[in-house]
Amino acid sequence: MNVEEKFSGYRGEALEAIKRAEAQIGDIIRITKDDEVYEGILIPRSEYGDEKHIVIKIKSGYNIGIRLTPNTKIEKIGVGAKPAFAPPPLPEQNPKLPQVAIISTGGTIASRVDYRTGAVRPALTANDLYSVVPELATIARIDAQILFSIFSENITPSHWTKMAEAIAEKINQGVDGIVIAHGTDTMGYTAAALSFALQNLPVPVILVGSQRSADRPSSDAATNLMAAVTTAAHAPFAEVAIAMHETPSDTTIAIHRGTKVRKCHTSRRDAFKSINTQPIARVRNQKITMLTNTYTPRDKKRKLTPKPKFNEKAALIKFYPNMNPAIIEWHIENGYKGIILEGTGLGHINKNCFQAIKNAIDNEVIVAMTSQCIWGRINMNVYDTGRDLLALGVIPLEDMLPETALVKLMWILAQTQNPEEAKTLLKTNIAGEFSPRTTPEEAKTNGN
Amino acid sequence: MNVEEKFSGYRGEALEAIKRAEAQIGDIIRITKDDEVYEGILIPRSEYGDEKHIVIKIKSGYNIGIRLTPNTKIEKIGVGAKPAFAPPPLPEQNPKLPQVAIISTGGTIASRVDYRTGAVRPALTANDLYSVVPELATIARIDAQILFSIFSENITPSHWTKMAEAIAEKINQGVDGIVIAHGTDTMGYTAAALSFALQNLPVPVILVGSQRSADRPSSDAATNLMAAVTTAAHAPFAEVAIAMHETPSDTTIAIHRGTKVRKCHTSRRDAFKSINTQPIARVRNQKITMLTNTYTPRDKKRKLTPKPKFNEKAALIKFYPNMNPAIIEWHIENGYKGIILEGTGLGHINKNCFQAIKNAIDNEVIVAMTSQCIWGRINMNVYDTGRDLLALGVIPLEDMLPETALVKLMWILAQTQNPEEAKTLLKTNIAGEFSPRTTPEEAKTNGN
Repeated sequence: MNVEEKFSGYRGEALEAIKRAEAQIGDIIRITKDDEVYEGILIPRSEYGDEKHIVIKIKSGYNIGIRLTPNTKIEKIGVGAKPAFAPPPLPEQNPKLPQVAIISTGGTIASRVDYRTGAVRPALTANDLYSVVPELATIARIDAQILFSIFSENITPSHWTKMAEAIAEKINQGVDGIVIAHGTDTMGYTAAALSFALQNLPVPVILVGSQRSADRPSSDAATNLMAAVTTAAHAPFAEVAIAMHETPSDTTIAIHRGTKVRKCHTSRRDAFKSINTQPIARVRNQKITMLTNTYTPRDKKRKLTPKPKFNEKAALIKFYPNMNPAIIEWHIENGYKGIILEGTGLGHINKNCFQAIKNAIDNEVIVAMTSQCIWGRINMNVYDTGRDLLALGVIPLEDMLPETALVKLMWILAQTQNPEEAKTLLKTNIAGEFSPRTTPEEAKTNGN
Repeated sequence: MNVEEKFSGYRGEALEAIKRAEAQIGDIIRITKDDEVYEGILIPRSEYGDEKHIVIKIKSGYNIGIRLTPNTKIEKIGVGAKPAFAPPPLPEQNPKLPQVAIISTGGTIASRVDYRTGAVRPALTANDLYSVVPELATIARIDAQILFSIFSENITPSHWTKMAEAIAEKINQGVDGIVIAHGTDTMGYTAAALSFALQNLPVPVILVGSQRSADRPSSDAATNLMAAVTTAAHAPFAEVAIAMHETPSDTTIAIHRGTKVRKCHTSRRDAFKSINTQPIARVRNQKITMLTNTYTPRDKKRKLTPKPKFNEKAALIKFYPNMNPAIIEWHIENGYKGIILEGTGLGHINKNCFQAIKNAIDNEVIVAMTSQCIWGRINMNVYDTGRDLLALGVIPLEDMLPETALVKLMWILAQTQNPEEAKTLLKTNIAGEFSPRTTPEEAKTNGN
């Protein structure tokens, strides 16, 4: 083990403290701080770690970070196993199986955890994957690559562009489906981005994450990954979707359309929900059941048209009581070309913001309305507030998710410089982001 | 009918067009515009109406607004009934029943609709209420007042202050419970505000709204109002809560704790949901069933301590991929004293915002973290991003709703000038805004 591996990720004060205790990654250590005593295995930190915390895996399997103070004492109380990642031999690949490209961007799902030490490393070579989830060899021939290895909160529109380009390359090479391993925090935003960026998709693109790391008995990593690969290899549709647990149990995996899905729980395995619609499909024991007839069918002869650019001069503004209208003005002054408002109820915002909204629209900034309710449909014809906003030129975005609306606007603003064309695109259903009005009751929706 | 009533709410171009057609409120009119023909009863507009729209109630009972263009034609095709609001005689009040004060702030629930014309007016004198919902006379003695008559998207912290003061006055007069009629759009924010502003409540304060106006067969106004009055008069707890439909059917009304509730659908009658907890109680046929043992009991001898002030220099910022950190800087420069971040997942935000967050904290701006997932609990110890933010001084707000966190911070900043005291208050459970960690599984929550 070289020096880097012995202290992986530790810097500054934390590194000094570990060295003083003559400990290294994998050793069992005891940390005494104030009146509390913590014991566990010293585990590596990521590249973003600060210099103040020591992270140990305690007996329950849970990782905790302990902040160093002048009176924190660290002792080595046992020598642990050192992380070992010798890959097993590559399994025989069945040439009759479809080929799936797995592209990793980071996140828990993309990591391989040493069960003893909790060390987390990207594990996206094909044989690493087969060693972690050997069942994959019976579903598809895997081709794996690491594109990035970052927490998904650090994903930006330029990463979406690189992902779209990497996917286009794989599709041009003739794969039967794509799996994107992704941190769950912003996976919904990325799914929407790829839904717009990958026009005329011939095969499925399935994003997959995990809510619990693979070192925990409750991990959802392997079941989600198997369902994602199954869907990429065998599903009848060619769309961008997210594969995650449908319920807290391991029984079924829901396949959510990329423009209609959002992370709705911080920690549950079934955190992802389709909003205002059903999932496209359900996977149970690697068998796919379609839940809708409305989808773009798989067709390898269809010619992908990548449109991978995004313009970051679009903002999402969540309204709250007496929000300062100067926040809207700030976006105009700073060259923003589009604003998605997350209003209240059917699409409302305090009338003291009307002048700022008018100024934005007069300056050719596109202003569109979504609802912070999350569920349901905007209807700006019911009350005067809505009608006044429509009269100002605010675009009502029906039942589109605020997050999807933001991503769509970033994408549109990279496709055209013409505001009228941009508005038309915003109102056009491009990737299933609008659901049809289904019932007379919903068409007559009301409320305040 | 005087001139004002004949054209109520119409101004400018719209008023001229109505006069030209020799029509008035209540008449049946036909509007021809482009190739579309609309027929219905001309209904009044609110004080906020623009000068461009004519609003009619069509046969389905639905109101639509039609924007005037140069080629819009308006004809009067029938004379309708005129709005009439002669109140019926006040019913006998049973002196043995508890006394409930209904304070109206506006919204659909607070309105009385003329069934023929769709005219909507505040209807909050006690006898108006008894005429709309005669069953109220069997539940409580009603004392009703109109405090405001505004759409709830226009409610601000200064309105919260006035509500708290009006409630305090009624409680000092000895009522057994308070009902606040409120538009649903921001009713969750107001419920949180009153939860903090009304310390040491002796009796229940129940907010109530309706998602469908009283002129529609599916209206929830009467059932919600009856349940709210029942709860205010008879519930064993003294807390601020919201009474709204529990399911789409009329069978049960859920009573949600004011700090744990949010509007989660634009139009459904069961739009309000308790988040990360159960409702406090359920009302079925005016019978209250408690769903928790953890509540402040009703005690008329308890002395209310109103703390009705709020400081508007607190902001809610919803993070999105590559959000510009200059937005955070703008709030520092503009004198904000507190920022609630709506981060991703367990409480994360792009590392390119760390410097701006550090600047805010260095300038004594309180920065606290909630999750845009809505459900679940912040846990900033699991990943390096969270640990780094904690090290910067960001306060993790457990399972508190972002909207409640904002309101709480506005309230705290009006209680103390001392940042350390403010931080302590923010972390203290004052009005049930934090739920206890209930399961070992939740305590070990993980994900990314």
